Amino acid sequence: MVNTIILGSISVDDIKTPAGEKSNVLGGSAIYAALACSLFSETGIISIIGEDFPKEKLEFFKSKKIDLSGLQIIGKTFRWKGYYENDMNQAKTLSTELNSLADFKPELPENYQNSEYVFLGNTDPVHQLKIINQLKNPKFIMLDTMNFWINTVKEDLFKLIPKINLLIVNDQEARSLFNEINLRNCAKKALDLGLDSIIIKKGEHGSMLFVKDKIFIVPGYPLDTLVDPTGCGDSFAGTIIGYISKNGYSIKNLKQAMIYATAVSSYNAQEFSTTILENMTHEKLQKRHDEIILLTRLEE
Amino acid sequence: MVNTIILGSISVDDIKTPAGEKSNVLGGSAIYAALACSLFSETGIISIIGEDFPKEKLEFFKSKKIDLSGLQIIGKTFRWKGYYENDMNQAKTLSTELNSLADFKPELPENYQNSEYVFLGNTDPVHQLKIINQLKNPKFIMLDTMNFWINTVKEDLFKLIPKINLLIVNDQEARSLFNEINLRNCAKKALDLGLDSIIIKKGEHGSMLFVKDKIFIVPGYPLDTLVDPTGCGDSFAGTIIGYISKNGYSIKNLKQAMIYATAVSSYNAQEFSTTILENMTHEKLQKRHDEIILLTRLEE
Repeated sequence: MVNTIILGSISVDDIKTPAGEKSNVLGGSAIYAALACSLFSETGIISIIGEDFPKEKLEFFKSKKIDLSGLQIIGKTFRWKGYYENDMNQAKTLSTELNSLADFKPELPENYQNSEYVFLGNTDPVHQLKIINQLKNPKFIMLDTMNFWINTVKEDLFKLIPKINLLIVNDQEARSLFNEINLRNCAKKALDLGLDSIIIKKGEHGSMLFVKDKIFIVPGYPLDTLVDPTGCGDSFAGTIIGYISKNGYSIKNLKQAMIYATAVSSYNAQEFSTTILENMTHEKLQKRHDEIILLTRLEE
Repeated sequence: MVNTIILGSISVDDIKTPAGEKSNVLGGSAIYAALACSLFSETGIISIIGEDFPKEKLEFFKSKKIDLSGLQIIGKTFRWKGYYENDMNQAKTLSTELNSLADFKPELPENYQNSEYVFLGNTDPVHQLKIINQLKNPKFIMLDTMNFWINTVKEDLFKLIPKINLLIVNDQEARSLFNEINLRNCAKKALDLGLDSIIIKKGEHGSMLFVKDKIFIVPGYPLDTLVDPTGCGDSFAGTIIGYISKNGYSIKNLKQAMIYATAVSSYNAQEFSTTILENMTHEKLQKRHDEIILLTRLEE
């Protein structure tokens, strides 16, 4: 049985940023999240790739304690081509070839049905709901989404909220979802719907956790070199689910998880694609974690 | 002798925000900064108003331990009319009547010449330099500026940098001044020019202090109601100079000052004009200070 599972996409990306460009590199929310999660917990992936996907990458995932029982292999792999302009805040899409992702019908394999810790990455809320309904004993479910679903099937998203513990979205998504500019009021609306907690990510400006009567903020780690922000949000979320799976779900652990998530996602932006995640060590992670703690400490 | 002085503008403002509108209200960098500063230290103002300026306001400033020896009264008071759109990040100017401010030639009165703590608010760098040159015994000089001066007389600004201790600018100003997008690299360039410290303000996203080999970050206080952000930057700066004047200049005190400054400037945005600053109490200030500290603490 795999205790921690991630639903998301796997892609082959062409990425251009002010720092350079790379073609045919690994991408997709499930990959970034799973590589981050695997720093803490054995991780199962629910995703789809094509027959063309490089076999050595699959072997590499297995070497990282990433279980592939939930990986479907059909047709051709999803491809994304995009670029970032100077501020690197927002990816611009040049082209998308959905390929096999277009017909993806996620299913929980038998060894995932008792999984307790679940990250439902951005996809059709219908698929997210289907996974939730197949879980026999969930302890902590976190959900991501994006503007496409918010703008087209907001009601489906709202149906998911009573079934999850943590909603993780960026500031723009929070504003669209709750039709409210002020982030504190967005969070209030989320909690009023029965959510335990909501994390609002603000890119370089850090992230905010809202739970009943409490707010916790982690500033962004101030990088001096930003190479490729692709996957920062997903590696952030993957770190959270991994840390919570390893240490249990509590507000204190969620806060601690956000510090590690800030460390992992800041590293992630320092090289193209998953280069840094593939080579992350616990020593490097702890070093940046400690630096992030010091950023807000009055003591020298 | 007045030990803490502030150079800046005084205006009568008409302000419109999504929360409402007010006409003929008090404004200007010197007023916001001095009201904040006076929470900690007796404060002298170097500024100019017109004969039309309400006399009862001058009496009110005196009641707040604000010294007016450096206040010139000529012609008509500077007027500013502006508005904010939904995100409230940036004031849009509808009209400016410089009036007596157009011919303002700031001079240090005799009882300010031995002042040790000085905030040079945004104005022509030539005036800022003139004040610096008249100081006999400065211990800590902090400087603000804005894009108009950065775009037109950047060289004059750079000449000031070796003469000051702390540069305080917002993110856009830092980027323009140092011709660099990355804020950490902006700060590096500032410190390489011989500055002790630079604070970069990021509005609702908080503020960052950079000193040699250290970064300190205070998140923005998450307000649920934002009424009028006018003067937030100036009340932030005024709090810093007041706190440092009262407690002495050290990195630890600068960090502590930034927490209080975040508290004061967040309160400032909760009502129009200087309403909140005029009625601030030490109890209210300490309460928000303590809340801001808790925002980044792992402990519950």
